[in-house]
Amino acid sequence: MKIAVLPGDGIGTEIVAEAVKVLNALDLTFEMESALVGGAAYEAHGHPLPESTLNLAKAADAVLFGAVGDWKYDKLDRPLRPEQAILGLRKNLGLFANFRPAICYEQLVGASSLKPELIAGLDILIIRELTGDIYFGQPRGRRVATDGHFPGAEEAFDTMRYSKPEIERIAHVAFQAARKRNKKVTSVDKANVLETFQFWKDVVTEVHAQYPDVELQHMYVDNAAMQLVKAPKAFDVVVTGNMFGDILSDEASMLTGSIGMLPSASLNSKNQGLYEPSHGSAPDIAGKGVANPLATILSAAMMLRFSLNQEAAAQRIEAAVQKVLAQGLRTPDIWSEGTTQVGTAQMGDAVVKAL
Amino acid sequence: MKIAVLPGDGIGTEIVAEAVKVLNALDLTFEMESALVGGAAYEAHGHPLPESTLNLAKAADAVLFGAVGDWKYDKLDRPLRPEQAILGLRKNLGLFANFRPAICYEQLVGASSLKPELIAGLDILIIRELTGDIYFGQPRGRRVATDGHFPGAEEAFDTMRYSKPEIERIAHVAFQAARKRNKKVTSVDKANVLETFQFWKDVVTEVHAQYPDVELQHMYVDNAAMQLVKAPKAFDVVVTGNMFGDILSDEASMLTGSIGMLPSASLNSKNQGLYEPSHGSAPDIAGKGVANPLATILSAAMMLRFSLNQEAAAQRIEAAVQKVLAQGLRTPDIWSEGTTQVGTAQMGDAVVKAL
Ligand SMILES: CC(C)[C@H](C(=O)O)[C@@H](O)C(=O)O
Ligand SMILES: CC(C)[C@H](C(=O)O)[C@@H](O)C(=O)O
Repeated sequence: MKIAVLPGDGIGTEIVAEAVKVLNALDLTFEMESALVGGAAYEAHGHPLPESTLNLAKAADAVLFGAVGDWKYDKLDRPLRPEQAILGLRKNLGLFANFRPAICYEQLVGASSLKPELIAGLDILIIRELTGDIYFGQPRGRRVATDGHFPGAEEAFDTMRYSKPEIERIAHVAFQAARKRNKKVTSVDKANVLETFQFWKDVVTEVHAQYPDVELQHMYVDNAAMQLVKAPKAFDVVVTGNMFGDILSDEASMLTGSIGMLPSASLNSKNQGLYEPSHGSAPDIAGKGVANPLATILSAAMMLRFSLNQEAAAQRIEAAVQKVLAQGLRTPDIWSEGTTQVGTAQMGDAVVKAL
Repeated sequence: MKIAVLPGDGIGTEIVAEAVKVLNALDLTFEMESALVGGAAYEAHGHPLPESTLNLAKAADAVLFGAVGDWKYDKLDRPLRPEQAILGLRKNLGLFANFRPAICYEQLVGASSLKPELIAGLDILIIRELTGDIYFGQPRGRRVATDGHFPGAEEAFDTMRYSKPEIERIAHVAFQAARKRNKKVTSVDKANVLETFQFWKDVVTEVHAQYPDVELQHMYVDNAAMQLVKAPKAFDVVVTGNMFGDILSDEASMLTGSIGMLPSASLNSKNQGLYEPSHGSAPDIAGKGVANPLATILSAAMMLRFSLNQEAAAQRIEAAVQKVLAQGLRTPDIWSEGTTQVGTAQMGDAVVKAL
C-alpha cells in the first residue's frame, strides 16, 4: 500500500502529520513517501506541481493531501499559483469523482449557523464531477469581441462542456453511492439556460433507467442553493458538475458549522484517490499548532476504505474520532463552553489513544 | 408614466393585481397596459414572449412583472418555455443591472433557517450582471468532441464571456450603490480557475480607482457561498456575474427566511426597468388567494424610485408595508404563532389602507 504524502502549505504540514501519526498507529504496513506541493514546491522548485511530485502521486495507490495556497502567491502568473497543483493532480490522475460528505456531528450541532432542528443528524453526500466542465474546457483566453454587446472590445472567455461518457460515469457513481445510503439522488443542473446542463439532465435520466430502485430528482442550481439552506436534510446524494459542485459542496460544508471535521475523496476509475480535508490552508493560523486535524484524519479513513481496501481500519479511525468528540476534546474552531480545548498534536494523540 | 403590466403564470396574476391596487391608491397618474407573458402567452399566442408584449415593454418606462413557469411546460422545446420570456426581456431591453436586496425584517427574524443573532438586521444588496456571461455567450450547442477526455463522443457546450465595457458598467453601478450605503463592495469571482473571472477581477479593480471612498474586497464564489451562511451581515454590496449572481442571490434570499418579501429590479442604461418579486410562480398555490403580494408591492416601490423618479411615493409604500407587518398581518408563508393570517387580497387592501 503506497501512499504519497503531500502536506502542501499553511496548516497542511501540521494536519497531515497527525493523520500520518494515526495511520502509523494501525497494525498495517504502508509505504509512505512525502513531497512538496503548492507554494512550498514553487519556493523550492519553481513550480507548484513538480514532475517528481506528480510522478510520486501517479505511482501511489493513494495521495494524502493537506492544503495549498497563500495570499502571497496571488500575484504570480496563474500557471505558477499553488491551486494549479491541485488542478494538475486531478487532471493527470483522472480523478473525476469527488466525494464531499456534509455531516453534522451530534456534539457539534451548536456550531452551525442553522437552527439545531434543521441541522441535527444531517448526512448528505455531494458528488462533484472533477475533471470536466468549465474548469478544463478549451478554448479559453482573451481576445477582441466580434459580436455580443460590445463588438471590438477586449473580452475574456471560457468554455463549459461535458461529453456523454463523462456524465455517464459520474451518474453511475452517484446511483451506486445512493444504493448504499437512502436511495435518493438529486441531480443539479441549469437546464433552463445551459446546453451543457440540458444534456447533463438528459444523460443522467438515461443512466437512471439502470437504477429503478433509486429515486432521481432534478433541481436547478439556484434552487439547490436555496433548498440547502431551507431543508438540508431533504437531500441524500447530490450529483452535479465541477463548477456547481464547487459552490454547493462548500455551502453544504459550512451549513454544518464544522468544516474542520469534513473529509473528501477524489477518485479515478482505478480507485486511485486523492484524500484531503474540505477546508483550506488557513495561512492565518499556520504554525500555531491550533488547526483541527480531524478532517485530514477522517480523509485518511476514506483513503483506507476507497483506495486501500481496509474497511475495518477505516471504521476504527472513524470510531476513534467519535470517541474523542464524546470525551469533549475540541480544537479552537469547534470549541464551545463546557468542552476541553486542545491543540493539533494533542488531538492527533487523543485519536491514536482512542483507536 | 407608462407601465407595462405582465402578470405571467401561477400566482403572478394574483400578486400583480395587489401591486396595481396599491399603485392606483397613490395620488399619481399612470398609464398602465397589461399583456400576456410566459406560459399564458404561449397558450394564447404560441410564444412565451409575443412581439406585442415585447413592444409594449419596450415602449414603457417600466415593466411590472409577476412570475412565469409551470412544470407542465417542461417538455416544450427550450425556445418556447416560459423562462425564455424573462431572458428575452432582459436581452431586448438591455437590462444589465439586477438589484436583489436581501433584507431581514425585524418581525420575521424567526422565519429564517439561521440563528436570530446571525440574521437580525441583515441588509445586503446583491448586484448581478444580467445580460452577459454564459447565459447569452455564443457558440453553444451539441457536437462531437474533437479533444478532451473522450474524443469522438457526443458533447454539449456553452461559452462564458465578459467584455471590458460590460464589466465596467456593472462595477460603476455597484460602487455607486455602495456610496449610498455602507461603502463596501465585495466582488465575487473565480479568478483562480476562469479566464473570464480573472478579467472580471482586473477590470473591477481598475474601476475601483475612481471610488477611493469605497472599500473593495475580492472573494471566490465558493467562499462567498460559505461566508453568506457563516456571517451574512459582513456583506454590504455584492457584485458578480450572471451565473454566480443567480446562485448567490437565491441563497441570500433564502437565508432571510422570507423570500416572499423580497423585491427585485433589473435596469438598463436609460433607467428603464423590469420589477418583479424574487420568488417564482409557485403553481402549487396558484389561484388559492394565499400568495404573499408584498414582494411584488415592494417591487412596485423600487419601480417608483428607479424608473419613475417618485422617491416619496416609493417611501410611502415601504412605510405602509412596515405598518402592516407591525399590525401583525401575515400571509401563510410568513405566518407564525401570535400573528393574524390573511390572504393575498386582504394583504393588498391592508397596504392600501396603511398608505
Ligand atoms: C483551489 C480551487 C482551484 C479548487 C476548485 O475550485 O476546485 C477549490 O476551491 C476546491 O474546491 O478544491
Ligand atoms: C428562470 C431563469 C432563466 C432565471 C435565471 O436563471 O436568471 C431565474 O432563475 C432568475 O434568477 O431570474
